[in-house]
Amino acid sequence: MIVVLKHGVSEEKKAQLIAWLQALGLRIHISDGEFQTVLGLVGDTSTVDIDLVESLEIVDSVKRVTEPFKMCNRKFHPESMVVEVGDVKIGAGNFVMIAGPCSVESEEQIVTVAKAVKAAGASLMRGGAFKPRTSPYDFAGLKAEGLELLKIARKETGLPIVTELMNINDLPLFEDVDVIQIGARNMQNFDLLRELGKLDKPILLKRGLANTLKELLMSAEYIMASGNERVMLCERGIRTFSDYTRNTLDLSAVPMLHELTHLPIIVDPSHATGIARLVPPMALAATAGGADGLIIEVHNDPIHALCDGAQSLRPEEFAALAEKVRAIREIVK
Amino acid sequence: MIVVLKHGVSEEKKAQLIAWLQALGLRIHISDGEFQTVLGLVGDTSTVDIDLVESLEIVDSVKRVTEPFKMCNRKFHPESMVVEVGDVKIGAGNFVMIAGPCSVESEEQIVTVAKAVKAAGASLMRGGAFKPRTSPYDFAGLKAEGLELLKIARKETGLPIVTELMNINDLPLFEDVDVIQIGARNMQNFDLLRELGKLDKPILLKRGLANTLKELLMSAEYIMASGNERVMLCERGIRTFSDYTRNTLDLSAVPMLHELTHLPIIVDPSHATGIARLVPPMALAATAGGADGLIIEVHNDPIHALCDGAQSLRPEEFAALAEKVRAIREIVK
Amino acid sequence: MIVVLKHGVSEEKKAQLIAWLQALGLRIHISDGEFQTVLGLVGDTSTVDIDLVESLEIVDSVKRVTEPFKMCNRKFHPESMVVEVGDVKIGAGNFVMIAGPCSVESEEQIVTVAKAVKAAGASLMRGGAFKPRTSPYDFAGLKAEGLELLKIARKETGLPIVTELMNINDLPLFEDVDVIQIGARNMQNFDLLRELGKLDKPILLKRGLANTLKELLMSAEYIMASGNERVMLCERGIRTFSDYTRNTLDLSAVPMLHELTHLPIIVDPSHATGIARLVPPMALAATAGGADGLIIEVHNDPIHALCDGAQSLRPEEFAALAEKVRAIREIVK
Amino acid sequence: MIVVLKHGVSEEKKAQLIAWLQALGLRIHISDGEFQTVLGLVGDTSTVDIDLVESLEIVDSVKRVTEPFKMCNRKFHPESMVVEVGDVKIGAGNFVMIAGPCSVESEEQIVTVAKAVKAAGASLMRGGAFKPRTSPYDFAGLKAEGLELLKIARKETGLPIVTELMNINDLPLFEDVDVIQIGARNMQNFDLLRELGKLDKPILLKRGLANTLKELLMSAEYIMASGNERVMLCERGIRTFSDYTRNTLDLSAVPMLHELTHLPIIVDPSHATGIARLVPPMALAATAGGADGLIIEVHNDPIHALCDGAQSLRPEEFAALAEKVRAIREIVK
Repeated sequence: MIVVLKHGVSEEKKAQLIAWLQALGLRIHISDGEFQTVLGLVGDTSTVDIDLVESLEIVDSVKRVTEPFKMCNRKFHPESMVVEVGDVKIGAGNFVMIAGPCSVESEEQIVTVAKAVKAAGASLMRGGAFKPRTSPYDFAGLKAEGLELLKIARKETGLPIVTELMNINDLPLFEDVDVIQIGARNMQNFDLLRELGKLDKPILLKRGLANTLKELLMSAEYIMASGNERVMLCERGIRTFSDYTRNTLDLSAVPMLHELTHLPIIVDPSHATGIARLVPPMALAATAGGADGLIIEVHNDPIHALCDGAQSLRPEEFAALAEKVRAIREIVK
Repeated sequence: MIVVLKHGVSEEKKAQLIAWLQALGLRIHISDGEFQTVLGLVGDTSTVDIDLVESLEIVDSVKRVTEPFKMCNRKFHPESMVVEVGDVKIGAGNFVMIAGPCSVESEEQIVTVAKAVKAAGASLMRGGAFKPRTSPYDFAGLKAEGLELLKIARKETGLPIVTELMNINDLPLFEDVDVIQIGARNMQNFDLLRELGKLDKPILLKRGLANTLKELLMSAEYIMASGNERVMLCERGIRTFSDYTRNTLDLSAVPMLHELTHLPIIVDPSHATGIARLVPPMALAATAGGADGLIIEVHNDPIHALCDGAQSLRPEEFAALAEKVRAIREIVK
Repeated sequence: MIVVLKHGVSEEKKAQLIAWLQALGLRIHISDGEFQTVLGLVGDTSTVDIDLVESLEIVDSVKRVTEPFKMCNRKFHPESMVVEVGDVKIGAGNFVMIAGPCSVESEEQIVTVAKAVKAAGASLMRGGAFKPRTSPYDFAGLKAEGLELLKIARKETGLPIVTELMNINDLPLFEDVDVIQIGARNMQNFDLLRELGKLDKPILLKRGLANTLKELLMSAEYIMASGNERVMLCERGIRTFSDYTRNTLDLSAVPMLHELTHLPIIVDPSHATGIARLVPPMALAATAGGADGLIIEVHNDPIHALCDGAQSLRPEEFAALAEKVRAIREIVK
Repeated sequence: MIVVLKHGVSEEKKAQLIAWLQALGLRIHISDGEFQTVLGLVGDTSTVDIDLVESLEIVDSVKRVTEPFKMCNRKFHPESMVVEVGDVKIGAGNFVMIAGPCSVESEEQIVTVAKAVKAAGASLMRGGAFKPRTSPYDFAGLKAEGLELLKIARKETGLPIVTELMNINDLPLFEDVDVIQIGARNMQNFDLLRELGKLDKPILLKRGLANTLKELLMSAEYIMASGNERVMLCERGIRTFSDYTRNTLDLSAVPMLHELTHLPIIVDPSHATGIARLVPPMALAATAGGADGLIIEVHNDPIHALCDGAQSLRPEEFAALAEKVRAIREIVK
């Protein structure tokens, strides 16, 4: 950690600060510049409250030189991680398409869509049973019944299930789910993350609307530090001033995350844009930008979808897209 | 709800859409302008998926004309609500100062600070027992033990307790807490909100870092629709590009929320700025801008605080601030 | 234009507003809903101050149903525009790569880079002679001398020149430049835009850091309404809370702009990310997302570049990228 | 400047970088930590391209320890600056109210409003003659004629004039203006800033919609470095995701700017919120937060204002506000 002192600090105050830092067990390297003094802190700096030090009157700024994430840090895990879901491999060159409806509505619907997306090349199936809704008056999913319908569709197609968990207390219901998705609003639900760390099941962790990449990685760290290393990250758009799309898909996060972590990076163009006709170009862009996979909403009858129909592709649109995705993968992989 | 069709839409497609909307039980008023056709939808439009309609090729835009929040809507509750916590009244002209340390650390600390802030004019005491932390490796609060220490401080001073709940399953521990605070990261933890609606206890609901005022109101609606109307809202800074403060305190939210809702509005300048020396000017600004109360971090020994010391005032600083706050209240109330 | 009145407005106030609107020459359609009254305004609503109407106490909200941009609006110009620069065609299926150094530094530098990028497939050359710099103490470009060096490089390679103009008074120096670039900071320098409208020369208009797509289109409208229709738009990143890249490249703007306007859309991954190693994935993503072209910084010796070296590719990196770009174009065009 | 190298960098690459930095005339202090090596650069680091160094593969991060602004930096000018406009003093405890209509419309209008705001306590008068407009089709001000009308109002009331300049070439028309205002969109029009530096006239420099405080200070530095030190800064709202107000007034910028610079800080609640009924609470908040002055739109007939009427107060509203502002000043000064 580096502490930059303000210009013209008295020797007495400087000595006080250094004594306080030494009392925390740190060694201090002092470097006097022409305008400012810089302290280099060596030792276990994890106990130092960076905001507190930065708030001291004599301090200009503080900078950590070691990142606070370890288990998901590529520095310590140079090889890309492969997450396995049944026979499906994700990451380290293995690309995955996850597709399905926003909400599970009926057996017929989920089975029909699952068959269609499988035929088009999806290797995992998505479908919401528990739905986060801004309004208490909106449809919140079929819940346990929805999970049962997903299992029927899995039996019919062989596609593993990806579905969202919102509440720790629902965990028992998710025992037979293949991948648990954590939505943007729960990215920093820390108690939930800790529980996920006790499972032996892959987690698809979505980036929060206003979260930095570092915060996303720290949330992955919560899961991994509790014992479950099978984490996939998902970029799904951030909240900005731009109002033409629901959120702003931050695609440069994909190559940047690849630098920072060895975990697989999935992109969700459906929720990011909220507009079906923007999904294909953004899915292709994400593929070209190096994503390890896509999660895409597909509905057999968008005009009657109970939820988020606006962003769902029809199966034939998904099939056409999937073909182009494969062609682009050939170029960029 | 108003649906604006695109220029040059065919009569056939227009008729199809109208038929579909009518099938949802709505009456449709058609208004043909020079460039565009506008449909006015009358009836229960809560079943209409606005995003879906907006995504249709023939539709230019859609606009709801009735707000989706009812129970917290000032339109239907013109008189400001007073929330009572013991003898303390909040809202409708009753101003409250809530103060205390970020984290509860020891009996001595919490009792000392509670006495100091009471002497300075605070009528509620804050203190974190369960702490949300970005990193799994950081101090996460004394938890149940911290709640016990808060109760000791309450016994010593008579100040009611405001403290944060993060996990539904911890609710039994909070039975004897006076006000439950829901932090920014849990503002859209919908299952948690529903549970809070079953309590007979005031809730202090903080705005999420990237949440609009409407979303904040919808989260209050979750609690109120489940049966608990004693909700206070808290502005605590939003995430923007601006990087000099931790977050950007959005003070114009205060008068705007007063227009939209009858609930009391509290401001937290400590977490918004993250810098102790900005807390007094922003506390005064919030008061002048019409807040119903302030929640401020005060610590007896900031340099040793385990958490967030950078944003805590010393008791004497808080006392000086409180005096000015009262003077400004005289002018603006 | 649609004006939604608040619930419970008195008949008298409603009549006053209607009379005032009629006095502006508009016809008013009144639609009384169960909760609210909606006024449809028909006629030339461009004279109505939408913010003023929205601010009236009896008004809930106002919505324009016709877009304020005409000349750059695809509704009125369904066919994509082709901008021609010498023999080079841009738009409507014609893809362009524009490449070159951030700043022109010397004849040797610009000629070397121009030859290299031409060999790699660039058909226009970029290079800054007038440089916008945040600090008055930083290198601001070779100015007139830089323009002369660009012309030498054009003579040697045949590549047309794209270079930035910052000041109306420098226009005479740009007479022999092929495409004038307007930077993000000048996107709303309206007097400058008007002057550009008097030229017979293509303009590359970059989106401002905090500008919506509508504002970008209105700035194009300034140029076009003054007589020059040869405008190309450029997405180059917006300012958000996200801090890993210099700006956040908003790639969904590409397909959205294609819907809204018939003008060509170029993407600048170099300035958006500010990091050379993110340029190739983002250039590929932009291509896959439907951009009509790329503008990329290339430098023969990044470590000595006077400016923005961090985001420049070496010629061989650009050549490798260009090959993949062409392959992706085959798939998406 | 501090350069943090990545973990595990080879000695050879480290030596190359050090040699390159030494060749730039710098002395290098090397500090080897347990995980990383940190280089302290001593000497004139203004020639070092921080982005370039940061982009090198072996570099983890770079941090400047001296701020790039000098002339507007409080470190070097500890006493607050007083800007004098005729007899009016601004800054260092001198508070100013600037008021007037958005646009100058007629002699009667501007004289009436000027008299009214003078009577209410304004000591400077604002009024737009040259108006920046997003659309080329909107009213852009009376221009030279508007400036003449302002002078008439000044003659009638004695109030000095504050009005916006958009174009270098209009400077001769502004010779007899008392304070030149530079709008948000021109905050980084660097050639314009340089010209302002050659004047002997106070400048009111507004913060751009997406500009950091550091960028605002760098723009002030442009003016001051060219010779004109009489600069006042103006916070007028930033662009964020929040959509209830036109922009988000960033009031914590006021105390933060006071720390960073000795220049006076003015706040514009009218443009920040865009809603007249939010102007009084935000004006009071700005005063309580430590602003040196307010600039407020006042119109004698808001419903007929040609521009921005939605955010204008009526004279009697301004008078009531001014009284409260003075009372709050008594408390916070």
